[in-house]
Amino acid sequence: MGFGHVGKAFLGLVREKGDCLKTHYSLELRLQALLVSAGGLFSESGITPRDFTEKAGPDLNLSSLWRPGLNVVSALGKTKPGIFVECTPSNIQTGEPGLTHIRDALKAGWHVVTANKGPLVVDLKGLRSLAGKNSLALKFSAAAAAALPTLDTALHSLAGAEILSIEGILNGTTNYVLTQMGEGTGYPEALREAQEKGIAEHDPRLDVEGWDTAAKTLIIGNSVLGLELALGDIKVEGITRIPPELPIKARQEGKAIKLLGRLGRSGGCWEAAVSPQLIERSHPLFGVNGTNKGISYTTDSMGTVTVTGGKSDPRGAAAAILKDIIHIFARVQ
Amino acid sequence: MGFGHVGKAFLGLVREKGDCLKTHYSLELRLQALLVSAGGLFSESGITPRDFTEKAGPDLNLSSLWRPGLNVVSALGKTKPGIFVECTPSNIQTGEPGLTHIRDALKAGWHVVTANKGPLVVDLKGLRSLAGKNSLALKFSAAAAAALPTLDTALHSLAGAEILSIEGILNGTTNYVLTQMGEGTGYPEALREAQEKGIAEHDPRLDVEGWDTAAKTLIIGNSVLGLELALGDIKVEGITRIPPELPIKARQEGKAIKLLGRLGRSGGCWEAAVSPQLIERSHPLFGVNGTNKGISYTTDSMGTVTVTGGKSDPRGAAAAILKDIIHIFARVQ
Repeated sequence: MGFGHVGKAFLGLVREKGDCLKTHYSLELRLQALLVSAGGLFSESGITPRDFTEKAGPDLNLSSLWRPGLNVVSALGKTKPGIFVECTPSNIQTGEPGLTHIRDALKAGWHVVTANKGPLVVDLKGLRSLAGKNSLALKFSAAAAAALPTLDTALHSLAGAEILSIEGILNGTTNYVLTQMGEGTGYPEALREAQEKGIAEHDPRLDVEGWDTAAKTLIIGNSVLGLELALGDIKVEGITRIPPELPIKARQEGKAIKLLGRLGRSGGCWEAAVSPQLIERSHPLFGVNGTNKGISYTTDSMGTVTVTGGKSDPRGAAAAILKDIIHIFARVQ
Repeated sequence: MGFGHVGKAFLGLVREKGDCLKTHYSLELRLQALLVSAGGLFSESGITPRDFTEKAGPDLNLSSLWRPGLNVVSALGKTKPGIFVECTPSNIQTGEPGLTHIRDALKAGWHVVTANKGPLVVDLKGLRSLAGKNSLALKFSAAAAAALPTLDTALHSLAGAEILSIEGILNGTTNYVLTQMGEGTGYPEALREAQEKGIAEHDPRLDVEGWDTAAKTLIIGNSVLGLELALGDIKVEGITRIPPELPIKARQEGKAIKLLGRLGRSGGCWEAAVSPQLIERSHPLFGVNGTNKGISYTTDSMGTVTVTGGKSDPRGAAAAILKDIIHIFARVQ
């Protein structure tokens, strides 16, 4: 469901990786439905690339498989349950339309992989409970910093260790702007550059006011630490009010200003916050510059483990979706 | 098998984590045998901490459960197969005594977790084939940089991505020495410091001549990329012949000298090498200083993903062993 940049990149990647998935994971994927808000394509035996690219038109409706009004519930009812991939745009206030799509898919017995932060921010607990009740997987690597393995690192690589605190640079736009500001570029120019490069949203407020970072911090805290944070529980400060001389001064002193999403305990309770922080050269996220991201987990038995990098463009998000599918397949195999 | 620093740390960690393993993973571990070269303790119903600490003596032989001459084959035959943990010292030339222990355990139907590089360097292919034939797990996170999740990142977090090249700082001693040399300490002093801090081995040649890095590079290449490297296939250059002015000059220019284990393709074939390299500030391993380690995977669909940190002391190795056991348990559950 969803045929924007991420949905298109995902279909391209599946096509490109067909042989590799078969060889390495004994996995063959068949695309049976491709949905947008106005309807969708459906084919029991599998939609081929020819059905949805050149011939289909930008809204798919020139394809011979096009069925106007086809929606999630009706499409999922037409075939044996498999994996439902949700890639509609995020709305972190209402979660819609993705929230309803995901609920419908889980109720219909489908595993779900989503790149959409909105439904997870609004009701991760409810969705997980619905998935658990039906013994289904609900996976969302692409919603928690795309190809940067924020969730896999915590849940798999650190299994058995207790996580004591988390710090992340989780938004590429703000990290790009802050990196440029450190080199003397003014905030408006740096933001315009980011927009021109297609990094920032046209309306960049979710990025620069810290809400995208807050949404990812919430998803990571609630899924990795089992918290029940709502957006309103997170103290959020963006990068719009940083005096321009601060990042320059920081850089001259061998330090850096970074917008960090942080989860830590205070008096026995977990607290989440998003704010610009001055970090030292020895901080594990110090070298994460430009549009790069990173996350650092401090644990009781494994020390601090930090993972950085990972494409955050649509192809990176598509690769994260594909990874989740491989993990589900390994589980149900 | 093996009751040195890592074996002791592992038993301590299992005791410390008992409740957490039950709560988070529904996992209860029972220690039935504890073996050293001269014999071992055995108890069908489980060895308790009291049986092997104060009362057992340094070689365990004061314990009431002590059985002189008890060996791997006889101990494993006494009980239903479970998980065999191998922690004897590494010998990367012969693989022994670990290689024989692991073969015996796999033949007897036991899953194996090892912290011992030797058997993997000498015959990973044979051991994997033996494990595969018997549908058993063979896991060795602790042998591939302890709590730094080198293998999990590649095999789990990057599932579906093609790895194009790998670079790692995989040895804490050499990285400590090079970091100190960058700050003006001479090589012999830096090495002596490392030895005094208990970081370096008393005989540090495996570290400084690059063989420890080569062994880990081999294990990573053979397990992650499916290569069949022998130690002799790797061009190995250590840090003993670096002119003392080079790390200082590098640091003054905002660069650094690092001992890198590298795997990359050259003319279609994979090549492995260990050598000191001059890296720029923008290199993802640039900030990995002191005894820290790190590894960087460059992929086709996820960009470059780098993981750094992770305790490399006996407790970090013990945490990696425990993680492997959790992963096996999740698989066989």
